[in-house]
Amino acid sequence: MTFQLTILGTSAALPYKNRFLSGQILNVHDELFLIDCGEAAQFRFQHLGIKHSRLNHIFISHLHGDHCFGIFGLLTSIAMMGREADMHIYAPEGLETMIEAVFKATNYKSPFKIHFYILKTDKNDKNTEGPPSDYSRIFEDEKMTVHSFPMNHRVPTCGFIFKEKPFPKNIIPEKIKQYNLTFDNIKAVKEGFDLKFKEPTMEGKIIPNSELTKPPLLPRSFAYCSDTTYFEPILPHIEGVDLLYHEATFLDDMKEHAFKVGHSTALEAGLMAQKAHAQKLIIGHFSARYDDLSPLLLEAQTQFPNTILGIDGQIYDVPLVRFEENK
Amino acid sequence: MTFQLTILGTSAALPYKNRFLSGQILNVHDELFLIDCGEAAQFRFQHLGIKHSRLNHIFISHLHGDHCFGIFGLLTSIAMMGREADMHIYAPEGLETMIEAVFKATNYKSPFKIHFYILKTDKNDKNTEGPPSDYSRIFEDEKMTVHSFPMNHRVPTCGFIFKEKPFPKNIIPEKIKQYNLTFDNIKAVKEGFDLKFKEPTMEGKIIPNSELTKPPLLPRSFAYCSDTTYFEPILPHIEGVDLLYHEATFLDDMKEHAFKVGHSTALEAGLMAQKAHAQKLIIGHFSARYDDLSPLLLEAQTQFPNTILGIDGQIYDVPLVRFEENK
Repeated sequence: MTFQLTILGTSAALPYKNRFLSGQILNVHDELFLIDCGEAAQFRFQHLGIKHSRLNHIFISHLHGDHCFGIFGLLTSIAMMGREADMHIYAPEGLETMIEAVFKATNYKSPFKIHFYILKTDKNDKNTEGPPSDYSRIFEDEKMTVHSFPMNHRVPTCGFIFKEKPFPKNIIPEKIKQYNLTFDNIKAVKEGFDLKFKEPTMEGKIIPNSELTKPPLLPRSFAYCSDTTYFEPILPHIEGVDLLYHEATFLDDMKEHAFKVGHSTALEAGLMAQKAHAQKLIIGHFSARYDDLSPLLLEAQTQFPNTILGIDGQIYDVPLVRFEENK
Repeated sequence: MTFQLTILGTSAALPYKNRFLSGQILNVHDELFLIDCGEAAQFRFQHLGIKHSRLNHIFISHLHGDHCFGIFGLLTSIAMMGREADMHIYAPEGLETMIEAVFKATNYKSPFKIHFYILKTDKNDKNTEGPPSDYSRIFEDEKMTVHSFPMNHRVPTCGFIFKEKPFPKNIIPEKIKQYNLTFDNIKAVKEGFDLKFKEPTMEGKIIPNSELTKPPLLPRSFAYCSDTTYFEPILPHIEGVDLLYHEATFLDDMKEHAFKVGHSTALEAGLMAQKAHAQKLIIGHFSARYDDLSPLLLEAQTQFPNTILGIDGQIYDVPLVRFEENK
C-alpha cells in the first residue's frame, strides 16, 4: 500500500537551473493527487514517467503563477492523450474563472468534465481552526481524507493534509484456531468488538478484543505547507504528521524580508516541524538566490534534526511501520 | 551584424522527450524577437542563456496552447527579474483578454507596459495578399521590417517574415583616393547617387555610381510558417526568403489527416520551400508519434534538398554573404 511523495519542483517564483516550479504528486494506494501545478508540470509528468490516468484530483494552494500556470497545459495535454474521466480541482476562488477565460480565448472545450471546489482560505474564519474537522474536509473516500487549512501568504492560500483512514485491527492468527473463529467472528474482532460466544458450551463467555488482536498499523499522513509565513494556527491541523513539506524560501538572516513577502525561513520550517511533532520534514520552495542549498538544510536541522532537502524528481516513501497503541 | 535563429522547441501539441513546445528567438543585430511562446519558454531562455533584456517584441502565430501558454510565466518572470521597459506583443485577437484574465485571477499587475497589436488573420481579406505591403507590415525600425500573413489552420493564424532593410552600396576604396572624395561625396555615392564635380577643373563631369561602387550585400530574411496546411497564398510573402521555418507535423502518408487538422506534411514543407525559392528550409513542429525524425527530413529533401531538421536549442546563423545585382 503505497504512500509516496514525488516532488516535481522546488524552486520559488522563478525556475532555477535544474529546479522546476512548485508541484508534487502524492501517491496514496496507487491513486495520484497533484498538489500545485507550476509551469511545466506536464513536462515533469513526462520526465518522471507519471501516469496521468491515475490522477483525478488536483489541489492548488494559491493563485500565484509559480503554483498554477502549469494547469492549462496539463489539462489540455491529458485531454489530447485521451482522458475522458472527470477531474476534480480544489483551489482558492478565481481558478475556474481563469481557466474558463484561457479555454475561451484558445477556442478550447475540455472533453472531460472538470469539477471545481473553492477552498476556505479566510484566516479569520474561526471554523477553519484545527484539528481537522468536517468543516475543513475537502475530500474523502474509503481509504483517505484530505483537509485544507488557511495559511498566511500575500494572497488567499491553503495548506493540505492527506491522511489514510484507520486500518482494521490485526487479529492474532493463533487465536483463530484456538477459538475456532468463523468469518463473521473475524470481521467483528478486526473492527474492534469483543468475542461473545453463543454456543451452549461457551454460552455467554466473553474474550476481550485486546486478547485477540495486535495493535493496527498507524495510518500515514502528509502535509503540504507552501506558501506561508511561519504561522502557528496551522499546528493543530498537522499535529503528528508523518511527512511535512514546509516551504523554506529563505535563510533566517532574511527573516524580516521573508515575513514581508509572505514566506518562511528554513529555521522557521524546522521550528514548525518540531512544534507539530512531525516525523520527518522536507523543505522546499527555495529562492533562486541559493545555489547551494546545504545552509538551508543545516539551519532547519538546528530546530528539527530529521529534516531533508526537497530535491526535484526525488521520491519519498512513507513506510507503513508504526503501530497504534492498543486501546 | 547578427541574423540568427534559436529554436526553443520543435514539438507539436505535446512535449516529447527532449522536444519542447513551439518557440523561436530571432536575433537581428542583437535585438531579440520571440516567435511563439509555448509552455516552458521561460525555462528555455534559462537553459539557453538568452537575455530577456534584449527582447522587446513577441509574435504569437495563433492561440493554441502549445504556441502561447508560456506567455504568462515569461511575462511575470521577466518582471520579477527587474524588467521595466515596454513589451510589444503581436497576436491574433483574444490574447490580450486572456492575459488580462490570468493577471486578474492571480492578483498580478505588470510593472512594465504591454502593448498589444492584433494581427490580420482573415484569409479572405484581399488586402493581406502578398507580396509584403504597408498593409501587412506590423513592425519597422531603422534596420528591419516584420510583415504578417494569414495562414490556413483550425483557428486564426499568421505567419511572419522578418527582413533586414537594404544595405548601403559599398564604395570601392581606390575610388576615394582617385577622385579625392569628401565625406559628403562618399555618403551620396553610398546612397546610390552619381558623382557630380563642382570644382572648376572637373566642372560638370559625372562619374556614374556603378563605376564607384560594388553591389551591396543582400538584406537577409527569415519566415516562420507554423501552424498551417500547405497553403500557396503565402508564397508571395516569402518569395526568395533566406531561411524558411515551415511546420512538418506529419509524414506525407498522413496527408489527409494533416489537412483535416490544419497541418502540413514534410513533403509539403519541402514543396513550399521549393516554390518560394527559399535558400534554406528548417522543418519543425513534429508530432510526438515520430521518435526518429530522419524520415521527415528525407521526405522534405525530395522536394527541397537544402532542408535541415529543426533541433531544440540549436542556433542557425544566416550569413551575410550574398550580394545584390548592381543596378
